[in-house]
Amino acid sequence: MDLTPSPLARPFPALPDIAGVTVRTVRAGYKDWRRADLTLVELSKGTTVAGVFTQSACASSEVELGREQVQSGSARALVVNAGNANAFTGYRGREAVEAIMAQVAEGIGCDRHEVFVSSTGVIGVPLPMDIARAGVDAALDAEPTSWESAAKAIGTTDTFPKGAGASAMVGGVRVELAGIIKGSGMIAPDMATMLGYIFTDAAVDPVFLQSLLNGINARTYSCITVDGDTSTSDTVLAFATGQAGNAVIASFDDPGADAFAAALEQVCRDLAHLVVRDGEGASKFIEVSVSGASSNDSARRVGLSIANSPLVKTAIAGEDANWGRVVMAVGKAGEPADRDKLSIGFGGHWAARDGQPIEDFDETPLTEHLKTQDITVEVEMGIGTGRATVWTCDLTHGYIEINADYRS
Amino acid sequence: MDLTPSPLARPFPALPDIAGVTVRTVRAGYKDWRRADLTLVELSKGTTVAGVFTQSACASSEVELGREQVQSGSARALVVNAGNANAFTGYRGREAVEAIMAQVAEGIGCDRHEVFVSSTGVIGVPLPMDIARAGVDAALDAEPTSWESAAKAIGTTDTFPKGAGASAMVGGVRVELAGIIKGSGMIAPDMATMLGYIFTDAAVDPVFLQSLLNGINARTYSCITVDGDTSTSDTVLAFATGQAGNAVIASFDDPGADAFAAALEQVCRDLAHLVVRDGEGASKFIEVSVSGASSNDSARRVGLSIANSPLVKTAIAGEDANWGRVVMAVGKAGEPADRDKLSIGFGGHWAARDGQPIEDFDETPLTEHLKTQDITVEVEMGIGTGRATVWTCDLTHGYIEINADYRS
Repeated sequence: MDLTPSPLARPFPALPDIAGVTVRTVRAGYKDWRRADLTLVELSKGTTVAGVFTQSACASSEVELGREQVQSGSARALVVNAGNANAFTGYRGREAVEAIMAQVAEGIGCDRHEVFVSSTGVIGVPLPMDIARAGVDAALDAEPTSWESAAKAIGTTDTFPKGAGASAMVGGVRVELAGIIKGSGMIAPDMATMLGYIFTDAAVDPVFLQSLLNGINARTYSCITVDGDTSTSDTVLAFATGQAGNAVIASFDDPGADAFAAALEQVCRDLAHLVVRDGEGASKFIEVSVSGASSNDSARRVGLSIANSPLVKTAIAGEDANWGRVVMAVGKAGEPADRDKLSIGFGGHWAARDGQPIEDFDETPLTEHLKTQDITVEVEMGIGTGRATVWTCDLTHGYIEINADYRS
Repeated sequence: MDLTPSPLARPFPALPDIAGVTVRTVRAGYKDWRRADLTLVELSKGTTVAGVFTQSACASSEVELGREQVQSGSARALVVNAGNANAFTGYRGREAVEAIMAQVAEGIGCDRHEVFVSSTGVIGVPLPMDIARAGVDAALDAEPTSWESAAKAIGTTDTFPKGAGASAMVGGVRVELAGIIKGSGMIAPDMATMLGYIFTDAAVDPVFLQSLLNGINARTYSCITVDGDTSTSDTVLAFATGQAGNAVIASFDDPGADAFAAALEQVCRDLAHLVVRDGEGASKFIEVSVSGASSNDSARRVGLSIANSPLVKTAIAGEDANWGRVVMAVGKAGEPADRDKLSIGFGGHWAARDGQPIEDFDETPLTEHLKTQDITVEVEMGIGTGRATVWTCDLTHGYIEINADYRS
């Protein structure tokens, strides 16, 4: 995090301690940098887990293993390596992950499959096993640290640490949630270069936790995009230690299930928004709301077509209410649309209604809105009741600067 | 064309006159600029026509009408307006096109449906009918001009005029082809902000010409991308005046059909490459070749996923042989892939084979290749026999500069 913080950065919030969760960070030295880059989170016995992963056809070994591990529903530790994604590294990559799992399992006394590993950074360089081994050794002996330290340690091109928290009343018991996330580039629908972790002391059945996370993912992480690129490593894991003492939540019929689900969704939405706020080069946070589409899924795809359009994103960077480019992006989405029923607005002001520019159109309020940091784009398709909201950032010179020489 | 020419620009070639084709350009004044912006091409009686158009769901009236007009197969005139796309302008847009068709039809004595109109530029502002009317009037009286003048007059953000020519022997008769094209941004698969026109003095049956153009389009215009955005107005039209005197080509069984088809494909490929060479902000021309895919279509989609990836394009701009980002783009394409059979190269040098970096990898030849202007990316999927080649350019600060303040 040596970079200048994004102008859209948010201060790191006060997050609750989560009973049953111990966070440690150390400098393993995956890159030649002076910062912690290995995070070890120890979880108490009985912790349940759920996860969602990248849909990349070239996923990393960490993701392949993680997909298998969440099936069992139990977790005792999480290791996050920053600076090396260990993706596209063949059998050597897989061996490196398995070695970390075995080492941590021995260190804390659990089964190997209860140790989750994530790695983020450069693709194609095998994770150096000696550095990982020494790092894990040091982490097992390290003093516990804060959420903010962990949020910093899991970052790569992030310009600020990202966290979000919430609480809920579950059957008369207060439960706490805390989450951290990393990601700024290579963010796209269907998961992204995003590593996100949510921890709660609530007791939650792992099958129910997985079903909650699947639904929430579709409305949060899968509705953000920075550049349309999808990483090989994206992972969001939710861990529930059960230390709060509530009766296990196993369905929406259980007391407090709705409150817990709402709190989890709030944390996930906040974390997703923070990733967009750290979008590489971002100067504006953009919310695209699509209504009147043929279905909710169709609305989401139209929204993402707009949110991924370089022409829309550069126009907003230039503070230009260029709704014509929004029309272009609606048209290319491949979804049902009727040009002559389409309406486009910015900041709550219509620029075009029913397929035509508004007569004697006063552009002043739109221009004023475009000068702010939080932009909204409204699209009314006029053909159905489907709706969705997606989030992105603008496309600026900063994106080029960050990505044209990241590796070197 | 006040902009600095793209570093990838090519000099305008010597193009043949095409018997039966008369080109005129005038300054109608669609924008406040000092240049010709209305092109009128008059075509001799008996000219046949074929066309391919944008797949945008919000296509302009010009495209809607053009799709109907090519059904008849005959053409007598083409009008191209530059500076105003007349798209998303409702019934007023359609009336403006129909007025131009009527005016030209009366001026040269033909049916209205034989007059093809294209418009390019800003979306959402109705084409000013008085300016168009005066412009067409002036064009009907103007002196004939050159292909290069027309190539300049149809441009908008283009930084250099684009043309290509070829000739072929058809049953002992030499036929000539000349083409011009405009387009630099909003270029994407399935057509783009591209207006392309090919003229030949060959006699070609319009149904056969259409089938040729469909196939060629799939291998040329549909295989280029600058930013993944698709315009509301894209159009490629091929006109055959029949003045060369060859026997009409109506199928591949006819003499010279192969030679004519090859010449037409060469012109279309050259024109498509010129659009990429004028990609907004481009500093490198990139050819992506995909082999070993499950099918040719799958190979093309993988190629376009790579060619559209901002992370790949910024890496190449930074002269970084970052093949890990190519892996990422293969993974996100949603096509069949096996990470452990995937090989990636640049400039004919493999960087990774069978899912792993090459041992003791000498990056020098790749780095040297990345410093040149013409970059090749090779991807071997290792799972089938499908192959495709697509073309794009890198993503630089220039793209942001051009698009963040185009309209104002």
